[in-house]
Amino acid sequence: MGELRIHSVLVTGANRGIGLGLVRHFLGMPNPPKWVFAACRDPKGQRAQELQNLASKHPNLVIIPLEVTDPASIKAAAARVGEHLGGSGLNLLINNAGMAKPKSLDNETLEDMTQVYTTNTIGPLLLGQAFLPLLKKAAQGSPSSALSCSKAAIINMSSSGGSIEEVYLWNYGQAVSYRCSKAALNMLTKCQSLGYRQHGVLCVALHPGWVQTDMGGAASQKPPVTVEESVGGMLKVLSSLSEKETGTFLDWEGEVVPW
Amino acid sequence: MGELRIHSVLVTGANRGIGLGLVRHFLGMPNPPKWVFAACRDPKGQRAQELQNLASKHPNLVIIPLEVTDPASIKAAAARVGEHLGGSGLNLLINNAGMAKPKSLDNETLEDMTQVYTTNTIGPLLLGQAFLPLLKKAAQGSPSSALSCSKAAIINMSSSGGSIEEVYLWNYGQAVSYRCSKAALNMLTKCQSLGYRQHGVLCVALHPGWVQTDMGGAASQKPPVTVEESVGGMLKVLSSLSEKETGTFLDWEGEVVPW
Repeated sequence: MGELRIHSVLVTGANRGIGLGLVRHFLGMPNPPKWVFAACRDPKGQRAQELQNLASKHPNLVIIPLEVTDPASIKAAAARVGEHLGGSGLNLLINNAGMAKPKSLDNETLEDMTQVYTTNTIGPLLLGQAFLPLLKKAAQGSPSSALSCSKAAIINMSSSGGSIEEVYLWNYGQAVSYRCSKAALNMLTKCQSLGYRQHGVLCVALHPGWVQTDMGGAASQKPPVTVEESVGGMLKVLSSLSEKETGTFLDWEGEVVPW
Repeated sequence: MGELRIHSVLVTGANRGIGLGLVRHFLGMPNPPKWVFAACRDPKGQRAQELQNLASKHPNLVIIPLEVTDPASIKAAAARVGEHLGGSGLNLLINNAGMAKPKSLDNETLEDMTQVYTTNTIGPLLLGQAFLPLLKKAAQGSPSSALSCSKAAIINMSSSGGSIEEVYLWNYGQAVSYRCSKAALNMLTKCQSLGYRQHGVLCVALHPGWVQTDMGGAASQKPPVTVEESVGGMLKVLSSLSEKETGTFLDWEGEVVPW
């Protein structure tokens, strides 16, 4: 297993939960990235307060405004990140922003299905397109010819809830819009891995575990994994990825999750 | 393998391709259903001419106007079918209507992703909800306690193109919006199987093969399967389904397709 050594990373949905945990972890690495781009909808809002506090202490943290359902916002974010990077590329795009609606099969609606799919599936597609030039640049600038996260990679935050085989936690919540969007995100990850391999970009889908976050559920439901455990596990997994893992679906402990 | 003996069936996207082939097959059975409901967007239009010709010869064929992306149209269709059925239920709902856009990973758009998902994934969800009362009625009226297509079933027309494992025909067309929508439809099928089992409704996803239709592609690409072969194979598969196949993904020859 190699060490994760990256020059730059972008995390979406970075103002709380797993996204914020990832940002903290990158900033705390022995060799932190030169640039940590933390994207969120409202960088100046109350919900981004922790990110603002971190940015005041870490000059390598840049907060980027981003609405993942808005193509113009995505393009603007890519342009802004490109300016910061100067001539260098982006090593890691972590599509972490996501949402869930606690509906059952019986009361799921067209509107919720559309909104959740747009955020969880279409957003990562458009982000992949917009940041591909920067990812390619990072891949071209890498000394290694083999795919790795230290070179260039897209990490899509999926869920075992989107595993058609497992239908993880069905009895906890049907959330059909969420499950369908994550199964589709897994397909997108596979397509990106096939399409972007030629550009030197590795692509994987990750299941972060059932984590103690707003989305994971109230304390009464006792999600078993802390943000720190999940993030630490996932970054260890990322550091170990090579050619043969591109296009796969792995959990935060490195185990393969069935589609 | 049992014989498929049904009182009623609804096929969406019934005016051409596989949908029209299914309608013809049902009408030509030795024991045809009392009601064959053929749903399409514009029953009076030029593209429904063959369906109109069939209806003039077969009094058990009823053409139902249906726009699968419009919740109001779906509810109206369910009400209309319910009126024809009088007090009896609907045995088979075949969600066949679907669309594809020939885009690549690089030029896929928010609009196309949304449109294809709405038609291919959200439509079948809403149809399942709207027709559930009629499917339950058929299940309750069935002499058998075991799940089967002769009792009550939802058949979702999927595709091996939506198999994340296979990514069937990637080099023929990336069609990311289509692949994502079908992977999501497979997840929906699994969710429906879990949610509707208690109501006596079997649910499966089918891959019809690479079929000689408008969607399958021009003759120059030589899809290997004719509509008649595909439809004949699928109905043989449907007649054989039992409890243990609910929630699975099968091809037109009865083979399991990996998710």
